[in-house]
Amino acid sequence: MTLDYDERYFHGKPQNSFHAAVNIPDVVVFPRSEEEVSEIVKLCDQYKVPIVPYGGATSIEGHTLAPNGGLCIDMSLMNKVKALHVEDMDVTVEPGIGWMELNEYLEPYGLFFPLDPGPGATIGGMCATRCSGSLAVRYGTMRDNVINLKAVLANGDVVKTASRARKSAAGYDLTRLMIGSEGTLGVITEITLRLQKLPEYSVVAMCNFPSIKDAADVAIATMLSGIQVSRMELLDEVQLRAINNANGKNLPETPTLMFEFIGTEAYSREQTKIVQQIVSEHNGSDFVFAEDPEAKKELWKIRKEALWACFALVPHFEAMITDVCVPLSHLAELISSSKRELDASSLVCTVIAHAGDGNFHTVILFDPKEEEQRKEAEKLNHMMVYKALSMEGTCTGEHGVGTGKMKYLEKELGLEALRTMKRIKTALDPNNIMNPGKLIPPHICF
Amino acid sequence: MTLDYDERYFHGKPQNSFHAAVNIPDVVVFPRSEEEVSEIVKLCDQYKVPIVPYGGATSIEGHTLAPNGGLCIDMSLMNKVKALHVEDMDVTVEPGIGWMELNEYLEPYGLFFPLDPGPGATIGGMCATRCSGSLAVRYGTMRDNVINLKAVLANGDVVKTASRARKSAAGYDLTRLMIGSEGTLGVITEITLRLQKLPEYSVVAMCNFPSIKDAADVAIATMLSGIQVSRMELLDEVQLRAINNANGKNLPETPTLMFEFIGTEAYSREQTKIVQQIVSEHNGSDFVFAEDPEAKKELWKIRKEALWACFALVPHFEAMITDVCVPLSHLAELISSSKRELDASSLVCTVIAHAGDGNFHTVILFDPKEEEQRKEAEKLNHMMVYKALSMEGTCTGEHGVGTGKMKYLEKELGLEALRTMKRIKTALDPNNIMNPGKLIPPHICF
Repeated sequence: MTLDYDERYFHGKPQNSFHAAVNIPDVVVFPRSEEEVSEIVKLCDQYKVPIVPYGGATSIEGHTLAPNGGLCIDMSLMNKVKALHVEDMDVTVEPGIGWMELNEYLEPYGLFFPLDPGPGATIGGMCATRCSGSLAVRYGTMRDNVINLKAVLANGDVVKTASRARKSAAGYDLTRLMIGSEGTLGVITEITLRLQKLPEYSVVAMCNFPSIKDAADVAIATMLSGIQVSRMELLDEVQLRAINNANGKNLPETPTLMFEFIGTEAYSREQTKIVQQIVSEHNGSDFVFAEDPEAKKELWKIRKEALWACFALVPHFEAMITDVCVPLSHLAELISSSKRELDASSLVCTVIAHAGDGNFHTVILFDPKEEEQRKEAEKLNHMMVYKALSMEGTCTGEHGVGTGKMKYLEKELGLEALRTMKRIKTALDPNNIMNPGKLIPPHICF
Repeated sequence: MTLDYDERYFHGKPQNSFHAAVNIPDVVVFPRSEEEVSEIVKLCDQYKVPIVPYGGATSIEGHTLAPNGGLCIDMSLMNKVKALHVEDMDVTVEPGIGWMELNEYLEPYGLFFPLDPGPGATIGGMCATRCSGSLAVRYGTMRDNVINLKAVLANGDVVKTASRARKSAAGYDLTRLMIGSEGTLGVITEITLRLQKLPEYSVVAMCNFPSIKDAADVAIATMLSGIQVSRMELLDEVQLRAINNANGKNLPETPTLMFEFIGTEAYSREQTKIVQQIVSEHNGSDFVFAEDPEAKKELWKIRKEALWACFALVPHFEAMITDVCVPLSHLAELISSSKRELDASSLVCTVIAHAGDGNFHTVILFDPKEEEQRKEAEKLNHMMVYKALSMEGTCTGEHGVGTGKMKYLEKELGLEALRTMKRIKTALDPNNIMNPGKLIPPHICF
């Protein structure tokens, strides 16, 4: 436990300049066990002290801010692997472990956990925000890859949500209720994750298109072909320009799709050929693919360093990163119509899409010292959210609500759904101590 | 709406003799729209009349019984396809449509909905019970295949749980909360389902083993190999005997695995060869496979008619069907130790397992006129549930809780989890009108 100002400031500081400035918890605690978490939560409930669960703090939607002060519960000391079951292909971990450390631990067993959000994200935080990443098109999101979890609720009860069986029809799905609840229903203290076999073979491929529409049509045709790509990422021409600038490359500055195919050697190659054919039928060109490990790494680096390349374009700028997701048939229309407004803006905006899921991020770069630029970035963000909602999409595919997306939930889900959420929240946390001010808009009552 | 006794009796009659005998609703209604459902529910809430949602009534755990009388809401007239989006690979339906009718509708589009519970099950009922079937090893359960749904809550509110985007991190997962809630939280009125491409090619294979352990080891090795079987079903020697008897066949009466592999032609064959190799490394024999459509149908018939073959063995008998599910590493141990007790019993008991999921059914045949036999069947059921729970498993992999499995939930999930479920139930249905007496054990309070 610490009352040290620097430590509290570190835990409360906003990720971006556009989040509220003062968010410093009154105290930061570092529990080492579920029992300690339960004791802490019980005391907070008794004295009505707000609790902010804190994982890797990589969220960009303000999930770990402490707008009401209170207690920040930093889970970093609870970072152990509790049990690995190779034959069951599952692992039980504490919430503070990072997904990258977990995968290092699993590699010798030929297994991995197939979600890849930003580096630094912890499994607990990934549960809390229902995150995903570039592999979701193949393996699903956090929703699909958690077998059970334990959480401490506001009254101090330690709840185990399910057995360790792969599937179960025994009672309400408390596992899924906690996943995506962003710390507003309880503190996650243990998670059992479903694992996957490390692919035997893989191929990485890349190709270019004259338009976003052509690239999106390839995404649709690929999904309809029944091929299970493990990754299908779309970058726009501005993103390619940023990559060329940052890395001294000379890639064509046009909409680009990148693929990863996995499986046996023969099957990975077969998938590559089928998709190459689909690409050629939709005006694609320059289809290249790599099988050699070094060549694959080099090719995939283009995607991996995309965000970094954006920041290199305009150092000292911040990024507002959007996260809309729509049914796949609307992706081309949404990106194209958004890009007309993005291109007309004075700000530099790049597009990176998880094309198979209909989820895309715009990296809107702005100077945090210029209030006008921040406003312009926010305007563009709004514009895309409203477009996505008009296409039966969501304001957030994988980043979560936090404080940033609350204002869109009523339009997306309707008042009845929000009232239902509020009823659940109130039933499980009557004193509203669990991460108050996040997820459920403050005006919702029932 | 009807008050007719025969109609009420039909809707209230128990599926099995071991369910409570008197379960007749006071009235049966057949709504045609969400608005009608909402009006009905509001009135019931006002007058505190119990509501029992009624789908295909194929549940075997008493979900559709009306132990408190009240109103049975038969959803059979709400059975339309509301919208098909081929490019998005999703379909929006009313709850009363059957999964088999839906798949007939989808076939011309090259798509299908990949869950195959008993014939007659409706999509609404499948949501309510979180069902699955033999394809779950590949495609997951109802939990994984619903994009959003609409439900009428106890206060008449119509809640849409999510957008139509493939993934979303926007708020509590109300979709998953409703899936598996067995009508205790609301009446499902619309569902948007994720669809799959009809496989381009498939291979069906079968092989025999000297022991259940060998067969289960093949299931584990196959899952660890990274091969995505679409089906992997295990039948025991008693089940094989029943099949031989019923169909005049001469199959070896030993533990048997049946597989289905799908994908491209080359990949289906490659998977077959890899699994054939795994089988040979685990004492398997008589590996046969079929590629010709008629031959595949003939081979798969063995599995498809397994339950019918059991009934043919002892006509006029009833079946108590168990549904435990355990982590895969425990499957062999659980089946083997259970079989020692099943074989020692005077009743005929066959085993059919969804081997890739660790889920198995025992068909325990008994004479409903003999109280002693019913008690013996129940004793065997208990025995298996307790064994499964001691192995971190669940009392129900896919059939649901209903009235039949309530007594096991506290042991499986703990009092804290059940209290949490009860809090949610009370928050959303304060008058306890929604399918009362199901899922949450009556002694739970908070």
